[in-house]
Amino acid sequence: MSLLVVGSVAYDGIETPFGKKDRILGGSATYISLTASYFAKQVNLVGVVGKDFDKRDIELFRSRGINLKGLQHDESGDTFFWKGKYHYDLNNRDTLDTQLNVFENFDPVIPEEYRDNKYIALGNIEPGLQESVLEQVDNPGFVVLDTMNFWISGAPEALKKTLQRVDLLVINDSEARELAEEPNLIRAAGMIRKMGPESLIIKKGEHGALLFTGDEIFSAPAFPIVDIFDPTGAGDSFMGGLLGWISYTDDLSPDNLRKGVVFGSVMASFCVEKFGPERLKNLTEKEIYDRYREFRRLSEIPEV
Amino acid sequence: MSLLVVGSVAYDGIETPFGKKDRILGGSATYISLTASYFAKQVNLVGVVGKDFDKRDIELFRSRGINLKGLQHDESGDTFFWKGKYHYDLNNRDTLDTQLNVFENFDPVIPEEYRDNKYIALGNIEPGLQESVLEQVDNPGFVVLDTMNFWISGAPEALKKTLQRVDLLVINDSEARELAEEPNLIRAAGMIRKMGPESLIIKKGEHGALLFTGDEIFSAPAFPIVDIFDPTGAGDSFMGGLLGWISYTDDLSPDNLRKGVVFGSVMASFCVEKFGPERLKNLTEKEIYDRYREFRRLSEIPEV
Repeated sequence: MSLLVVGSVAYDGIETPFGKKDRILGGSATYISLTASYFAKQVNLVGVVGKDFDKRDIELFRSRGINLKGLQHDESGDTFFWKGKYHYDLNNRDTLDTQLNVFENFDPVIPEEYRDNKYIALGNIEPGLQESVLEQVDNPGFVVLDTMNFWISGAPEALKKTLQRVDLLVINDSEARELAEEPNLIRAAGMIRKMGPESLIIKKGEHGALLFTGDEIFSAPAFPIVDIFDPTGAGDSFMGGLLGWISYTDDLSPDNLRKGVVFGSVMASFCVEKFGPERLKNLTEKEIYDRYREFRRLSEIPEV
Repeated sequence: MSLLVVGSVAYDGIETPFGKKDRILGGSATYISLTASYFAKQVNLVGVVGKDFDKRDIELFRSRGINLKGLQHDESGDTFFWKGKYHYDLNNRDTLDTQLNVFENFDPVIPEEYRDNKYIALGNIEPGLQESVLEQVDNPGFVVLDTMNFWISGAPEALKKTLQRVDLLVINDSEARELAEEPNLIRAAGMIRKMGPESLIIKKGEHGALLFTGDEIFSAPAFPIVDIFDPTGAGDSFMGGLLGWISYTDDLSPDNLRKGVVFGSVMASFCVEKFGPERLKNLTEKEIYDRYREFRRLSEIPEV
């Protein structure tokens, strides 16, 4: 089944304790598409880039078989640019610069040939734009949405309206607590699922992730990484691995969602090993499945 | 194999968002002994209580088959008293009152009949006292130590000296980062294991626990509890379940340590369901094993 991916395509300037890149490919749609491309039969990208967008980055998407018919080229300005600096502990970062550029007027237009896509990945953009995507697709089968505290506090009504049409919400733990206004994560999850999403994933960074679906809770571990090089894109890579797997298998059972969460965690764990999307350019199937098995062993509880 | 437990026996005054108790049995040796008693063949307690100690609490220990030969009765004063109030999110608490009383001069004396014990649980007390226990036992086979930030910052040299004789250290994540002076938990674990303990458990509260042993890392989930009633004693209950299981099975293999971590998590999850040690007084074997199986399902990753 084809996967529709909508989000930002950007250039990032990144500084971590381990190094610095002035300008490297980034954006939620970039990370979601690249990681999903290892699983999905067809990834269909929707986003916008400016006149400065590098042909080599177009080539990168093409090399991964990603359909770019929905990638708008706006010659009136430059590509969205974000610059940030990570602190020593890598859990916090300061935004040093944000230039929306052509992204400021981004209006996602879904090409005719994408409109029958069953699996929809809505990367973190303004909730109203996320909803406009859903207006344009024929019969969305499984809608997955990412958002952030900026929209939770800044556009709560628009977000809650969009959430009613979402099947699976993917957010991090502080965002879940903020959205539900409840410190206990398990209780917060119950409250958020009443807002619309039947299923919910709470990402907890170095503590793994929680999946709530049906009557089940699944607790996924985080991969124990000694050298996290650059956390940029880890959350989007999670979403790409998850949706790549689920769209590929076209199976929404709780056990298959568990597998999706682990493949998402696998892709996030690769993402942080190098700067930007560098590590996601040429992974092998063996590397991906070997790491899946390492996740299994990591959290295996023997029978008694 | 018998289990020697050394630590505090206390009365606690506890206030949580769900209620208040002016005076309830507490202390690390109390929680460790009660939870271990569900597994261990023999729990041998060492601690001190004052002239105010209630006969009904003695009866409670006896009802669980706990050997009290090492429980000193100091008639010169009252039992150690601690009073605290938990915040709304239950992750933080304020200490409102600490009366060391007879605990101030506590000098653990290990009775003759305890000295051949193979399994030693050193609850959170001053590191020098923990070491004096090890001086008194014949041939400690497996020494497990708990400590806290108070000793990490206040008595680092004594703690590091004691750590050289410890087989398994059990601390929480903020303590691990502080002890290693390193924010990355996986890296911190490697540094702490070089200080002495071959194995290490890092407790992460609502995020579960990590076990480092041999070349392995095990990530245990936390039980998803909507109504945490009172977190007091959860960490000590973890240690009691862990050591109760390990001393009972007398098996230090990585797979059996994993089981111990899960039984520790099981007992901690029961502990927080009621005030103080209330829930630990009469658990059934079925309740304990059923919850173990719930932990297994919670973190089960299907094969692909």
